[in-house]
Amino acid sequence: MSAAGYELYYWPTIQGRGEFVRLALEAAGAAYVDVARSPGGMAAMMKILKGGLPGPLPFAVPFLRHGDRIVSQSAAILAYLGPLLGLAPEDEQGRSEALQIQLTLADLVTETHDTHHPISSGLYYEEQKAAAKARSAAFVSERVPKFLGWLERVLVRGGGEHLVAGQLTYVDLSAFQVLSGLFYAFPNAMARLRAQIPRLLALHDRVQASPRLKAYLTSSRRLPFNEQGIFRRYPELDLQRQERQRAQRSLRARSTPRGRSAARAAKTRASRRK
Amino acid sequence: MSAAGYELYYWPTIQGRGEFVRLALEAAGAAYVDVARSPGGMAAMMKILKGGLPGPLPFAVPFLRHGDRIVSQSAAILAYLGPLLGLAPEDEQGRSEALQIQLTLADLVTETHDTHHPISSGLYYEEQKAAAKARSAAFVSERVPKFLGWLERVLVRGGGEHLVAGQLTYVDLSAFQVLSGLFYAFPNAMARLRAQIPRLLALHDRVQASPRLKAYLTSSRRLPFNEQGIFRRYPELDLQRQERQRAQRSLRARSTPRGRSAARAAKTRASRRK
Repeated sequence: MSAAGYELYYWPTIQGRGEFVRLALEAAGAAYVDVARSPGGMAAMMKILKGGLPGPLPFAVPFLRHGDRIVSQSAAILAYLGPLLGLAPEDEQGRSEALQIQLTLADLVTETHDTHHPISSGLYYEEQKAAAKARSAAFVSERVPKFLGWLERVLVRGGGEHLVAGQLTYVDLSAFQVLSGLFYAFPNAMARLRAQIPRLLALHDRVQASPRLKAYLTSSRRLPFNEQGIFRRYPELDLQRQERQRAQRSLRARSTPRGRSAARAAKTRASRRK
Repeated sequence: MSAAGYELYYWPTIQGRGEFVRLALEAAGAAYVDVARSPGGMAAMMKILKGGLPGPLPFAVPFLRHGDRIVSQSAAILAYLGPLLGLAPEDEQGRSEALQIQLTLADLVTETHDTHHPISSGLYYEEQKAAAKARSAAFVSERVPKFLGWLERVLVRGGGEHLVAGQLTYVDLSAFQVLSGLFYAFPNAMARLRAQIPRLLALHDRVQASPRLKAYLTSSRRLPFNEQGIFRRYPELDLQRQERQRAQRSLRARSTPRGRSAARAAKTRASRRK
């Protein structure tokens, strides 16, 4: 490794949590080695996870090696890398705000993972499918709208273009990644939400179209989403088509005065039935 | 609020994630207001959560208000507070290491919460009890030993007394809290693990016995653990007594040479039976 170079350590066959770090490195045009995708890299990664180097012991991947620094936990890696790559706010207050939003994105990522693994990561999806369906139903109906609605409000409050400090930061890149993953995994649920998150969609599209990211996303370095990663497309976990059509009819209905009064009447009937 | 004072905002009837912040404030002897436990505090908290103040919008509680700063996400709050309270390492590298460990503790806290709510926080425990039992079984047999074993190794590598930088930091306080919560929620599983985490137990006891923490923990400000919080004692989710006795016999057997060879023989028999 060159003294100035970055080494990213992460599982070689999925985007996973490593992708949040990779996007920052790529967006900055930084030179880095994706160690576990290189010859001998998996062995080197396992050795460090087992405590083979002095300094902080990573609990899990991803971790970054930079000179004599080892940094683990995606949000901590980005808090470290952001300033070095010009992808963080300049001042302490802005950096703290970036961390706060990044941690909320990390919570959403964990909840997304748990839609297909609600019982244990040590079991196959097929062994926890019933619980996965129940968890996913709550996730797409309650959690995703709450998280994305919050991100939309944060964008609006910050001027509409960026999540923190009115400038492109690693947080915008991570929001792009989470949104891309949710579109992949839950296309029906996300189609229903589109109208409520216009600024977030625009941010996603701007990040995707930026020259360095565009080059990366169309390269072989960008692994496709797949059913070993965090964002998995299991149609049975997504909002079902009928539910989505029903939800959209109901949204359309509520958007006209006549529709609204009809919707109110239907709601009253529904609550009477209880 | 006095300009220099800290305001902590968190649900008033549980320790929850607010406790990690509260422990740091208490250990430093800082003056603070626990807003939602004060008259009118819940309304003030909800107003800020709804966007009633300029600046960063918290996604959830806990959040801290300090002068014109609003900081949310426990780990980000502690990263902000630690240096102000003298409970963080002096240099950037040490502070990053503190954040990395704190984020791993936060992951463990989330996994602990999900043992009783594996499907949805919007449902009662009783509505997801079967999934809770399955998730808890994996949690106590795989995840808790992995997390606590890692913390023990981090302690050993750092000299045995503190988790970061050879000094008391907010990370030690958070580790105390997680350990206390796990002892409350999973007494059988934790009894089995005691022998493997001597330094972590000693750290827990030192924190508990330190004068300010001792005063706090015996005050009415320290709410008891209860079955509305993150750490809940549902005996059906803990390791069952028979399993624990079996596990301890097997551990004892393996600790003598004769026992070890008997254990190996039993293991061979067991795998042959498969």
